[in-house]
Amino acid sequence: MILLGLDPSLSSTGWGLIRAEGNRLSHLANGQIRTKASAALPARLAELAAALEALIAEHRPEAAAAEEVFVNQNPASTLKLAQARGVALMCAARSGLEVGEYAPLLVKKAVVGTGGASKEQVRAMVLRLLPGAAIAGEDAADALAVAITHAHHLASARRGVR
Amino acid sequence: MILLGLDPSLSSTGWGLIRAEGNRLSHLANGQIRTKASAALPARLAELAAALEALIAEHRPEAAAAEEVFVNQNPASTLKLAQARGVALMCAARSGLEVGEYAPLLVKKAVVGTGGASKEQVRAMVLRLLPGAAIAGEDAADALAVAITHAHHLASARRGVR
Repeated sequence: MILLGLDPSLSSTGWGLIRAEGNRLSHLANGQIRTKASAALPARLAELAAALEALIAEHRPEAAAAEEVFVNQNPASTLKLAQARGVALMCAARSGLEVGEYAPLLVKKAVVGTGGASKEQVRAMVLRLLPGAAIAGEDAADALAVAITHAHHLASARRGVR
Repeated sequence: MILLGLDPSLSSTGWGLIRAEGNRLSHLANGQIRTKASAALPARLAELAAALEALIAEHRPEAAAAEEVFVNQNPASTLKLAQARGVALMCAARSGLEVGEYAPLLVKKAVVGTGGASKEQVRAMVLRLLPGAAIAGEDAADALAVAITHAHHLASARRGVR
């Protein structure tokens, strides 16, 4: 099963594709979609949608997952992120993909074993779980981590362990 | 010129279409797009996108406008709203529409004359400015108000008065 992990944001949406066969995971591809900072918000969102649709059409994932969003210290950037996230979820749903949603804490716990893990720890563990992956950046690493979390979740669900 | 006003939200996105010829405004259509509360967020966003695209294809507006969003007392509902708004802006941009963005206060000021206007005052003034309009609800009234604001703004810009 091919899984698409998404870490949406307006400036740089991370994405990661993995193959999950039972408990075996392997890396397929990852990257970061950047939109023109000089363009207006609606145009940037359209740019993001086009890139995601192309990605989904090319790789044909069978499920998707994204981090949940919370209002943090910077409300303005949270709102930008949420608008980008809306577009990303919409693209996945339109392609017939169900989208798992996971809190950032849960992703860290699933991948590293502790909710307090640093970005570096997440990236290092993603590399250990997906040997040979050349990770495009922090957002792509987060996206792969979400995909891994979703794979674990689906495997647990199949075993009846939730 | 046909203008599309949008008041996006996940549960009920208001929309309003007006025709602006110089300073003359007339009502074309308005409504509210509701999404299934029982469906998952990505599916609801896809539903919203499909409805907006159909609307734009049918009425072929030449410009769009939407209220700005701010984080309010209820962060969770603001985040839902922002995700719906992202999808709405994206749909407009994809159809080649530029989207004017106006703070709610500015919309009230443009339509009623005071930023402290109530919902009822906005609706009453929308009805006075667009005689004969049968308004589908509060969200549709807000959407028409945004469209009117955009029409005023464009007319002022043409006169060189900003």
